[in-house]
Amino acid sequence: MSVITIERKVLEKNDQIANELRTKFKSKGMFVINLLSSPGSGKTSLIERTVEHFKDKLNISVIVGDVQTDNDAKRIGKLNIPVVQIITNGSCHLEAQLVRDAYKNIESEVADVLIIENVGNLVCPAGYDLGENKKVVVISTTEGDDKPLKYPAMFRNSSAMIINKTDLIPYVDSSLDEIKKNALSINSTLEVFDISCKNSKGIEQWCNWLESQIHK
Amino acid sequence: MSVITIERKVLEKNDQIANELRTKFKSKGMFVINLLSSPGSGKTSLIERTVEHFKDKLNISVIVGDVQTDNDAKRIGKLNIPVVQIITNGSCHLEAQLVRDAYKNIESEVADVLIIENVGNLVCPAGYDLGENKKVVVISTTEGDDKPLKYPAMFRNSSAMIINKTDLIPYVDSSLDEIKKNALSINSTLEVFDISCKNSKGIEQWCNWLESQIHK
Repeated sequence: MSVITIERKVLEKNDQIANELRTKFKSKGMFVINLLSSPGSGKTSLIERTVEHFKDKLNISVIVGDVQTDNDAKRIGKLNIPVVQIITNGSCHLEAQLVRDAYKNIESEVADVLIIENVGNLVCPAGYDLGENKKVVVISTTEGDDKPLKYPAMFRNSSAMIINKTDLIPYVDSSLDEIKKNALSINSTLEVFDISCKNSKGIEQWCNWLESQIHK
Repeated sequence: MSVITIERKVLEKNDQIANELRTKFKSKGMFVINLLSSPGSGKTSLIERTVEHFKDKLNISVIVGDVQTDNDAKRIGKLNIPVVQIITNGSCHLEAQLVRDAYKNIESEVADVLIIENVGNLVCPAGYDLGENKKVVVISTTEGDDKPLKYPAMFRNSSAMIINKTDLIPYVDSSLDEIKKNALSINSTLEVFDISCKNSKGIEQWCNWLESQIHK
């Protein structure tokens, strides 16, 4: 029982900092996405395609979380946008305090959108508010149809689901219809986008939705 | 600080139960694998191929962990072997106590091998001993080359790495050599197997290794 109490306190503190962050982000007129997925579903590739799409149109900053390495920040840094890497050093999710510390490094940059790429994990990150406007979950066609049923919190808490690697559909047993049916059975209000970061199919539809959210 | 203390106590209790389980498993002459991976890398498919390979030769029991659903137990149950599903109901990893409770349901069955399929997660399960003889990590070719560097604990603690979905190599940017190089830089003693659960390539080599471990 004592562990549960401690866990609740950790979450209470997290939510308090997340609310402070949300207020700050709002005061800057910045739309903030918490980007979630399994390892290797394509979060970083999605950020690359999104930044390329909005080049010369919107300013995007990125905070990226990993257990180890700054590989992703190096990749995103090549796009010449503000990026901060958080290395959690063993922890399986980002917490609001880490995001607050990381954001200080790019606070002076003008940004319309902040994308927070969470640690690759379909479980724990679902429970931690980072002050974002929307959670967006990425799932790849290679992961099988039933992941929304197996990891329901992630899909219940997200506003949009991006199905990536549609270019691999001919070679895997997954069906887009089945993934969508399972996800919508958990959360009927999910916006769904089929994309391929490899051939850029569907990136425009995703970016149009993202832009419509900013101007809400 | 208090959170760290509590966490340590949880792990101490886990390790104590894990050691009791290991003693019990040994007394039964059973070889136990803790099978780890991201969601959708193919742990359940690997179990299916492995059970089919050893049909009429070895008795295999399975304990399978998921956050939600008993889909995997239903799949494995079709193979007519003893299987127990643990639903963690939100928790992102198996703990020794859950395995102890689950094992009670199949304790009376004769088994040469027990495979414990952990929750799909490359982070947290690495820290929890389940009384196994060996941890085996599965990674799929679709997840990218750098996952061993990003989730080092999982690869450091495993005795073998199975690279699944080699049938998809022509369609993805990953290289088997790069995955191996990265994994071996973390843990040079890893046994490595390239397999495809779809076309069964490499299953025999993996099963030969597994069999050699049992008889050690």
